[in-house]
Amino acid sequence: MTHDLALTTVVGNPKRLSRTLTTAEALAAAIGAGVGTEPRTTSIDLAELYLDGIEPPHGGFEHAVGQIRAGRVLVVGTPVYKASYTGLLKLFLDQLPPHALEGVVAVPVTVAASAEHRLLADLHLRPVLAELGASLPVPSLTLRESELPDLPEHLRVWAEAHTPALEAALAFGRKTVGAAA
Amino acid sequence: MTHDLALTTVVGNPKRLSRTLTTAEALAAAIGAGVGTEPRTTSIDLAELYLDGIEPPHGGFEHAVGQIRAGRVLVVGTPVYKASYTGLLKLFLDQLPPHALEGVVAVPVTVAASAEHRLLADLHLRPVLAELGASLPVPSLTLRESELPDLPEHLRVWAEAHTPALEAALAFGRKTVGAAA
Amino acid sequence: MTHDLALTTVVGNPKRLSRTLTTAEALAAAIGAGVGTEPRTTSIDLAELYLDGIEPPHGGFEHAVGQIRAGRVLVVGTPVYKASYTGLLKLFLDQLPPHALEGVVAVPVTVAASAEHRLLADLHLRPVLAELGASLPVPSLTLRESELPDLPEHLRVWAEAHTPALEAALAFGRKTVGAAA
Amino acid sequence: MTHDLALTTVVGNPKRLSRTLTTAEALAAAIGAGVGTEPRTTSIDLAELYLDGIEPPHGGFEHAVGQIRAGRVLVVGTPVYKASYTGLLKLFLDQLPPHALEGVVAVPVTVAASAEHRLLADLHLRPVLAELGASLPVPSLTLRESELPDLPEHLRVWAEAHTPALEAALAFGRKTVGAAA
Repeated sequence: MTHDLALTTVVGNPKRLSRTLTTAEALAAAIGAGVGTEPRTTSIDLAELYLDGIEPPHGGFEHAVGQIRAGRVLVVGTPVYKASYTGLLKLFLDQLPPHALEGVVAVPVTVAASAEHRLLADLHLRPVLAELGASLPVPSLTLRESELPDLPEHLRVWAEAHTPALEAALAFGRKTVGAAA
Repeated sequence: MTHDLALTTVVGNPKRLSRTLTTAEALAAAIGAGVGTEPRTTSIDLAELYLDGIEPPHGGFEHAVGQIRAGRVLVVGTPVYKASYTGLLKLFLDQLPPHALEGVVAVPVTVAASAEHRLLADLHLRPVLAELGASLPVPSLTLRESELPDLPEHLRVWAEAHTPALEAALAFGRKTVGAAA
Repeated sequence: MTHDLALTTVVGNPKRLSRTLTTAEALAAAIGAGVGTEPRTTSIDLAELYLDGIEPPHGGFEHAVGQIRAGRVLVVGTPVYKASYTGLLKLFLDQLPPHALEGVVAVPVTVAASAEHRLLADLHLRPVLAELGASLPVPSLTLRESELPDLPEHLRVWAEAHTPALEAALAFGRKTVGAAA
Repeated sequence: MTHDLALTTVVGNPKRLSRTLTTAEALAAAIGAGVGTEPRTTSIDLAELYLDGIEPPHGGFEHAVGQIRAGRVLVVGTPVYKASYTGLLKLFLDQLPPHALEGVVAVPVTVAASAEHRLLADLHLRPVLAELGASLPVPSLTLRESELPDLPEHLRVWAEAHTPALEAALAFGRKTVGAAA
């Protein structure tokens, strides 16, 4: 029997291919590995999605929503800008239909330039994700830029502390592939 | 095999025997019933605990901490005062040792006089409970005073929506009584 | 002697020519009238500015920053989306240089669909504006959509309560035109 | 002509005669000196006020409210406890009548153990003070414990940046003593 866990990463750094993106993807990979499944991961770089305007052309937005809906876990990455999450991330969340994240386990990851700002994006982001219906069973990963060179160690500590609770949350309602076989 | 689920209720209404207290106790009972166990519930009325001063005498504080630590679920009740949770509730949370709520699933319940203030106590309370290490897997129950006469119906709707996720969170790490028999 | 007060309005509704825009412009006009000057007002509709991408072409962003810097008062309008201010507004604020609003008196105006959400955008927006260096001497105007038909009355009540404090804040450092004549 | 400026300090550290208290009193003194008046300052140590219970006996609460009402400036001091202001401070604010701080210019001062928590108490406290009707025209003084040995320098920098705006806010509605003479 194979657990078919789909993880989606969405990142609101207005710079394409940002360190926030690679950090969020690394967290998604660590979660996938931690819950002992064969995870399938996809990644949405909002700097790409909104390159040509706040109304993405060519069905790009609908495609992104489909990716999120296909996943059980959504890793939401943002740098801390002006004492909160980025506007680019919120622009995308604003366009989601109500309750779009119901049934989705969300895990925020934030990257701040200064210690003072380390907790601010998370503090404001979690109520927004909750408003969209996401489940937030574990603490966010909040990093300072100066900690990024030690990312593997930070991921290891975070995963050790929070994978069991995450696994429990995911066990609830998980669709198993091949169960009928 | 019997699931031995202990639920604790702590309420920060400065008026003893408040409607917030009975509301929080009703939520604890609904959760206990919902997860299909033989729940044991205890209740801490902070207006009682702090009756004689902000340093409760006679080991009252240590007794309350023991009750919380013995429980898997902590229902945290507060009216909305001055656009947030009450100072009395925070006074108690301030006195808890760091990480005091690790391993505890917390469910806030707030009661507001006006619709405008309905979400405010919850918005500020959840980060405080998270700071103490609590797991917050489900949305809070946020009520207006005018909704209290229909409390059973509000509890039913809340429990129907959130008991499965709560059960999953509790399954993780639950100690079973009689498992060795 | 003429007081030359410049007011700028910036609105983060992703729909062009929104009711949020007309509401914010009406507030700017009321403030201008209230402080007894000959106000000059300009208005930035972010739905226009970001029509072609999150990096506005043709110097549009620099032009907007110049308008804000030329003003003493900045009326900041946003609908309440997903329990906070809009991402479009924050996208613009993110792109401002640090301390860009120093010396600017900011007055937020928010429009919410429901009473429960009436205070949420303001609660999160004020710290962001403060981070940018803005002075926030008076309470925001927070409206529900259902109150918009009575906007003149709401403006009158707000202006009566807060114009004196606003005038005092503006008196500090106001440049007078024609003083040398 | 003498400007009769009354400043009140209220401090929510549950430890009597705390460093938060001396810090807040030093800020009040710096503000008094900065606005060039003959300030009269009084100080309320909430650890004293609530020594015997959350309902202070002997009219202590009414006396404290009278002191606040007699002042134009209220310096509000709190350590950062559990990621926010203290419950003791909020306990006092909860007991104030609605709009109790109307006409009062409030200046928060917070002291945090860690850089990560430096901004958190302020972020949550300002909306509470605003709800009570206070005017908050200038940024708070947010300090880390490790910065307290350099308090005079921090006060100097803060006062240099914010005294002019504070003075403008106080000029509005200031009662002058001896004006009729």
